[in-house]
Amino acid sequence: MEHRHHVVILGGGFGGLAAAQSLKGAPVEATLIDRRNFHLFQPLLYQVAAGWLSPANIASTLRVALKRQKNARVLLAEATGIDVEKRQVILSDGQIDYNTLIVATGSQHHYFGNDRWRAIAPGLKTIEDATEIRRRIFLAFEAAERESDAARVEALLTFAIVGGGPTGVELAGALGEIAHDTLKHDFRAIDPSKTRIILIEGGARILPTYPEELSTKASTALKKLGVTVRVNALVSDISVDAVTVKQGESLERMPCHTVTWAAGVQASPLGRAVAKSSGAKVDRAGRLEVEPDLTIAGHPEIFVIGDLANYTHQTGKPLPGIAPVAMQQGRYVAKVIAARIKKDRIAPFHYRDRGAMAIVGRASAVADMGRLRFSGYFAWLAWLFVHLVNLIEFQNKVLVLVQWGWYYFSRNRAARLIVGGAGSKAACGEDAAGGNR
Amino acid sequence: MEHRHHVVILGGGFGGLAAAQSLKGAPVEATLIDRRNFHLFQPLLYQVAAGWLSPANIASTLRVALKRQKNARVLLAEATGIDVEKRQVILSDGQIDYNTLIVATGSQHHYFGNDRWRAIAPGLKTIEDATEIRRRIFLAFEAAERESDAARVEALLTFAIVGGGPTGVELAGALGEIAHDTLKHDFRAIDPSKTRIILIEGGARILPTYPEELSTKASTALKKLGVTVRVNALVSDISVDAVTVKQGESLERMPCHTVTWAAGVQASPLGRAVAKSSGAKVDRAGRLEVEPDLTIAGHPEIFVIGDLANYTHQTGKPLPGIAPVAMQQGRYVAKVIAARIKKDRIAPFHYRDRGAMAIVGRASAVADMGRLRFSGYFAWLAWLFVHLVNLIEFQNKVLVLVQWGWYYFSRNRAARLIVGGAGSKAACGEDAAGGNR
Repeated sequence: MEHRHHVVILGGGFGGLAAAQSLKGAPVEATLIDRRNFHLFQPLLYQVAAGWLSPANIASTLRVALKRQKNARVLLAEATGIDVEKRQVILSDGQIDYNTLIVATGSQHHYFGNDRWRAIAPGLKTIEDATEIRRRIFLAFEAAERESDAARVEALLTFAIVGGGPTGVELAGALGEIAHDTLKHDFRAIDPSKTRIILIEGGARILPTYPEELSTKASTALKKLGVTVRVNALVSDISVDAVTVKQGESLERMPCHTVTWAAGVQASPLGRAVAKSSGAKVDRAGRLEVEPDLTIAGHPEIFVIGDLANYTHQTGKPLPGIAPVAMQQGRYVAKVIAARIKKDRIAPFHYRDRGAMAIVGRASAVADMGRLRFSGYFAWLAWLFVHLVNLIEFQNKVLVLVQWGWYYFSRNRAARLIVGGAGSKAACGEDAAGGNR
Repeated sequence: MEHRHHVVILGGGFGGLAAAQSLKGAPVEATLIDRRNFHLFQPLLYQVAAGWLSPANIASTLRVALKRQKNARVLLAEATGIDVEKRQVILSDGQIDYNTLIVATGSQHHYFGNDRWRAIAPGLKTIEDATEIRRRIFLAFEAAERESDAARVEALLTFAIVGGGPTGVELAGALGEIAHDTLKHDFRAIDPSKTRIILIEGGARILPTYPEELSTKASTALKKLGVTVRVNALVSDISVDAVTVKQGESLERMPCHTVTWAAGVQASPLGRAVAKSSGAKVDRAGRLEVEPDLTIAGHPEIFVIGDLANYTHQTGKPLPGIAPVAMQQGRYVAKVIAARIKKDRIAPFHYRDRGAMAIVGRASAVADMGRLRFSGYFAWLAWLFVHLVNLIEFQNKVLVLVQWGWYYFSRNRAARLIVGGAGSKAACGEDAAGGNR
């Protein structure tokens, strides 16, 4: 075992896990390192935030995913840097040698220099983000139920989502359903259908990477769910009780207690550490520029894939930071590694774009499959199907299907637990009071 | 609405929720106050800790449980005391008037004066407790996988459970299965079947409230799962890396990284606040002594039910702190309140004991149904059935059934996420290092 070629993979997301699994059967030892013990199916994370699914439904233990693969092992550890000379990954509590390194540590939220917004307007990247956003959403309704001041009730029932990409659109749609369907009969003092949901997009239209007709359709679907879509609107300030929006020359301060950040992302900080040691070039978003075979210039033993890679050799522009790109890159890199051992060569990486989809509320979605663009009920069914089959564990496919089916017929979302946050003991006491301020 | 008799219920556990639901149709307004937004099915909490079920599977939103009951409302708030003169409940952020009060705030863990053990050896009462215990269990295996020192590996793979009641027995059984079945193929450096699980009971036998033959059967079943049962053993110290046990005259220090507390409980602190204002008598465990109709002496408008009540009028001893007692008391109190309004009288409360069951690993349980005592596979099926039908939401019945069925055939527990704790970012880095110390 010690003498086989050792591939170290940093990150168990879509790219890293695909690489590890594609190395099955290759004459190498693979070590997958992640600081979490699970792979997260991020495209469904907003459904955890909305109280529709439980965290475990969209997560698969990395050890289970690689259980039967004898040439792979998993280490729970945090990588802090690399040493290209020694061919070592530096961990927070040790180091590990590699022959080949695959860096796939993804991206994180970016607040464009306004880091104090981070605590007020959480983003949606991790399980903890999702349960925190869920907590804030449902606590806002609870605080409103107990509030007597009409203006404060209105502010508590105002939800702002910053960023009109797929995550922002999906979350806004989910909030629309929560307010108008799920909570309909739950409260005695407030009317949840009076909830205001504001989706704030800096550009000229939501879903900017989709064809314009689908942006328009998504906008229409969101309006039906009671969502106000504000385009060409920049967030100039976020505080605990308001969000300030700049549209053209006018500044508007909207009282609002719950803000979610779905705007900017930047590459994981490990990217800069890798650049420092390897001399790789970093773009403005912190991504590493890669060669046609996804290696770093001058370091054929280091691959960078997924959100962390800036790959421009196909279209002249970086490929989008989405799961299909990362997975295809993971599989490609595994092939290159196996080929090298056999002294074979492989053509440059080529991304096959199979389209994109976003869900806009119950029984409605938009899908862009190149020349085939569709929306509404069938796009929604296609969305459900694609996301269901892509969940890794069979058990989760069944559980998610049961919950989606249940929700479709009953309109009840069961996973509406308010947990964590200010601690179990005072979880509601402190926060409800906070909301009342 | 304002002029109807107002019943305030403190606590949405088995007692409080049963009382609220049983007041349906009564000419009263009911307000259920809880600091959490959900009712928790505590008997299955150990399965959340074991990574078998997700938190939402055993929780039901209180608002959903009372959605269709027009005379009931839910307030998310924390009660800190009462004022019997003003007939007011004092909340952490306000107060609320009552005509009749039902106090059902339950119990919490008790460390017999060793409160510093609380952080080292968490108990199993809340969702957060369960996910924290889950986190510690699976992190211990992860840390062991990375540890090179044999003695430390052994300490990391030693799990102690303090208290041989149903919770301790069920958790020990679950750990036995995790070590010998679930994790069998997951690790490369360690052999999880070498895990030591020690169940420490101060009395002469585990399951002390069950008939002796069932204690013996449970012991045998646990031994088959690799659990060491230590009876007549008192815990004299718990530290981060060891637990010290006193058996007779001998003191034994066992290196051990994961300790769970399933020993003592005491009444919720609200009990003493109620006693202070009402003059009610409090027993050593902090429970309030109640009259044959579950009211406090001299205060027919205040009922105390569930774990917080010390009811001795039936057997001379306090009734056990279990869900059936609390539920029957909740229903009884609702009847008394409805009867009083009609100027009727109701006989004293009488607990109907329908038996008790505890699960001891996969496909094995013990059941005590009075004269009918049984164990093994059929007791296990009975246990599954009783717990499944008692889950409140239909959706959860289906989800739990799918997961149990899945587990029965695949022996895989899917909900093994390590979340929270030291924060999402460093959840593993910091803790794995901590485990290595």
